[in-house]
Amino acid sequence: MHRTRIRVVEDALDANNTIARANRADFDRARVTVVNLMSAPGAGKTAILERVIGELQGVSVGVLEGDVQGSLDAERLAGLHVPVTQLNTDPGFGGECHLDANMVRSALDSLPLSEIDLLVIENVGNLVCPAEFSVGEDARVMVSSVTEGEDKPLKYPLMFRTAQLVLINKVDLLPHLEFDLEHFLYNLDQVNPGVDRILLSARSGEGTGALCDWLTRLATPAGGGVREEVAM
Amino acid sequence: MHRTRIRVVEDALDANNTIARANRADFDRARVTVVNLMSAPGAGKTAILERVIGELQGVSVGVLEGDVQGSLDAERLAGLHVPVTQLNTDPGFGGECHLDANMVRSALDSLPLSEIDLLVIENVGNLVCPAEFSVGEDARVMVSSVTEGEDKPLKYPLMFRTAQLVLINKVDLLPHLEFDLEHFLYNLDQVNPGVDRILLSARSGEGTGALCDWLTRLATPAGGGVREEVAM
Repeated sequence: MHRTRIRVVEDALDANNTIARANRADFDRARVTVVNLMSAPGAGKTAILERVIGELQGVSVGVLEGDVQGSLDAERLAGLHVPVTQLNTDPGFGGECHLDANMVRSALDSLPLSEIDLLVIENVGNLVCPAEFSVGEDARVMVSSVTEGEDKPLKYPLMFRTAQLVLINKVDLLPHLEFDLEHFLYNLDQVNPGVDRILLSARSGEGTGALCDWLTRLATPAGGGVREEVAM
Repeated sequence: MHRTRIRVVEDALDANNTIARANRADFDRARVTVVNLMSAPGAGKTAILERVIGELQGVSVGVLEGDVQGSLDAERLAGLHVPVTQLNTDPGFGGECHLDANMVRSALDSLPLSEIDLLVIENVGNLVCPAEFSVGEDARVMVSSVTEGEDKPLKYPLMFRTAQLVLINKVDLLPHLEFDLEHFLYNLDQVNPGVDRILLSARSGEGTGALCDWLTRLATPAGGGVREEVAM
């Protein structure tokens, strides 16, 4: 009865981690590599998936779409002929702003794990809370759009610090922006030195080959080295 | 002891609303109009303030800067010679993804309420949770950047539904995007029919005059009609 508020938060995260480990064990048993894909709203997560899923060779992909409400992104991906499962976070309230391990667990039975090699979990668009909740993923990939400014790694450090790969999207717009790429990369290295990064344009296709290579390495046994980097 | 999880959430919101009403009473006593400014990360809240605060005539402005960590935005506003108070949400954990009424209340003593007519509370960049927590504001203003896509009102409906003004920012980039403005406005009217909206570019200055007019009307007694629209 003497617990402080912080203690309660830690308990909630502890429970989350317990469930995340159970998810991870199930994914490992099914030999499915799991990517937790995160970004701010409108940074281009779905556009990147639309572009990359068709290009991936020899890796069967499934997608778990996390949204507060609706299934717009799942509908966008429907034409790619890969299994897509929708997960909505709104319980009649405003909606949870992130996925947690238990939400992902509730979707496990709907996921065709035996048919896929790589599961991409597209998280709710948010740079804060999704970073706090492991869902049992092997790697975290985050998207930062150049339209969002150079300061984002410093303003949302946990998100950038816990990513194994940072996708710098919408680089086709660089000629029309005052975005200082060197400054962004400097800020990124301040919070996550040397983290893998790919310059990308979901519109022009720049960088999608490099992303396919990265995902293929992750999803094949020899590329399993990244798996231990996600703390749970 | 038989409360469900949802019940706890409602209690938390109820406590928040109690404190928000106390904040509102204090703001009213000091004759300060309060705007809760919200958006996704990188949509341009601070850039808009940088542009507009200097243009406002006859309205003394103060700013309360909400961030997970750091004071980058407060530093950007320092050159405008208006009082700026920094409020950080990180308690050593990942950081809260929104401001709530109690956080704002904790800053009341640092705010020079007797010197200002309008307090702008720049919320944490997030399209979900900030919409759930009243902080005692008179009006909610949200920023949606055209780089974020047309679907955002449908994906984050509570945020768009509870705004009294939607700023559609970065319109200078429209020639370089495939953004369909009519489609965005259609989606906006689906969730918040007829809500005030201003096309804006913090970079070019387009629309900042209209925003100044809107804020001036809000902050002067004759414009107080909007005040009752924020549910608490």
